[in-house]
Amino acid sequence: MSGRFISLEGGEGVGKSTQARRLAEALIQRGVDVVLTREPGGSPGAEAVRALLLEGEGERWTPTTEALLFAAARADHVARTIRPALARGATVICDRFIDSSRAYQGAAGVDDAAIMALHAIGSGGLLPDRTLLLSLPPGEAAARAMARDGGNADRIGGRDAAYHAKVATLLASFARAERRRFRFVDAAGAEDVVTRRLLVAALDGTAG
Amino acid sequence: MSGRFISLEGGEGVGKSTQARRLAEALIQRGVDVVLTREPGGSPGAEAVRALLLEGEGERWTPTTEALLFAAARADHVARTIRPALARGATVICDRFIDSSRAYQGAAGVDDAAIMALHAIGSGGLLPDRTLLLSLPPGEAAARAMARDGGNADRIGGRDAAYHAKVATLLASFARAERRRFRFVDAAGAEDVVTRRLLVAALDGTAG
Repeated sequence: MSGRFISLEGGEGVGKSTQARRLAEALIQRGVDVVLTREPGGSPGAEAVRALLLEGEGERWTPTTEALLFAAARADHVARTIRPALARGATVICDRFIDSSRAYQGAAGVDDAAIMALHAIGSGGLLPDRTLLLSLPPGEAAARAMARDGGNADRIGGRDAAYHAKVATLLASFARAERRRFRFVDAAGAEDVVTRRLLVAALDGTAG
Repeated sequence: MSGRFISLEGGEGVGKSTQARRLAEALIQRGVDVVLTREPGGSPGAEAVRALLLEGEGERWTPTTEALLFAAARADHVARTIRPALARGATVICDRFIDSSRAYQGAAGVDDAAIMALHAIGSGGLLPDRTLLLSLPPGEAAARAMARDGGNADRIGGRDAAYHAKVATLLASFARAERRRFRFVDAAGAEDVVTRRLLVAALDGTAG
């Protein structure tokens, strides 16, 4: 048996982390065995790589090196956390996964084919069963991110508005290209309303 | 103009680091502009990744994750140190390069094609103009490594004799497959004798 693998994607400030936790809680209340995790990170090795990725100067890494480090962190996370959880039948909820690499490193100029080749080598090309793409009007997301980070965003979150607009465009294009895997979810409104939308979209197409 | 790129390869205890330094000194005495560097490491970012690779428990990383981390460290090293040095016409002497990944991660079970694919993505597939493969009878190399490390080898150097034998076999097979790039160099004997052998083998085939 293999559990269900659900990823949450979206730009800075759309509420992914909060909603990933709320979605996990909603499933646990229904008796589901849930593993809630995040990227970059999600295993001790990957968290060590996360620190290299998110700290330091903006130009610390070239986009290609950054793509390799994300692939390394993901390979560790998949091998140590995600595959064991799916193998025991748990539902894995992951705050960001491969589509974040495709969008963020893609917006920095790395080929999508190269990013997918790294994913094939590092993680056997594992894809989520369902990817929930949260979206907000850009101004609202930026205001939320600013309220959260107070201007102290990390190395990648702190890039300029044009970069983040490109990230959002890429994420939407992935979702349109893979309609079976993706669901667009409106992240505006009260937290519990958004969680209900996510719960429906997460389970849509399953017997559960 | 582009400088000459020379790598030194060989198992633990064959004297690569000492001889890389001696070879650099011999070339500097001849008026050559030399950049002496090493892997994993050789640039600030790559040295940070080196610490992740060489410290911690033996099973800290899967062989695939290890290959991705080495490729990330190499991408940084190539972009920040090696390519700029070659571009200004310097001779680069590097203590270990891509063939170490092919041998060490190859011996741990990673496909050579995957390692070369990572190298193509991360570092544009850059190969040395000359690779010097130092060799010693296995017993002698192991005794030297033990004398140097006192039984405190790093995560990878400390693997068992069967693993290191496989590494040596792979390195020799790469050298036989690429005779233009590689030279076998006997690492037995006095240090200055070995340095003279390396100097001849490093320049063999060039006008200098």
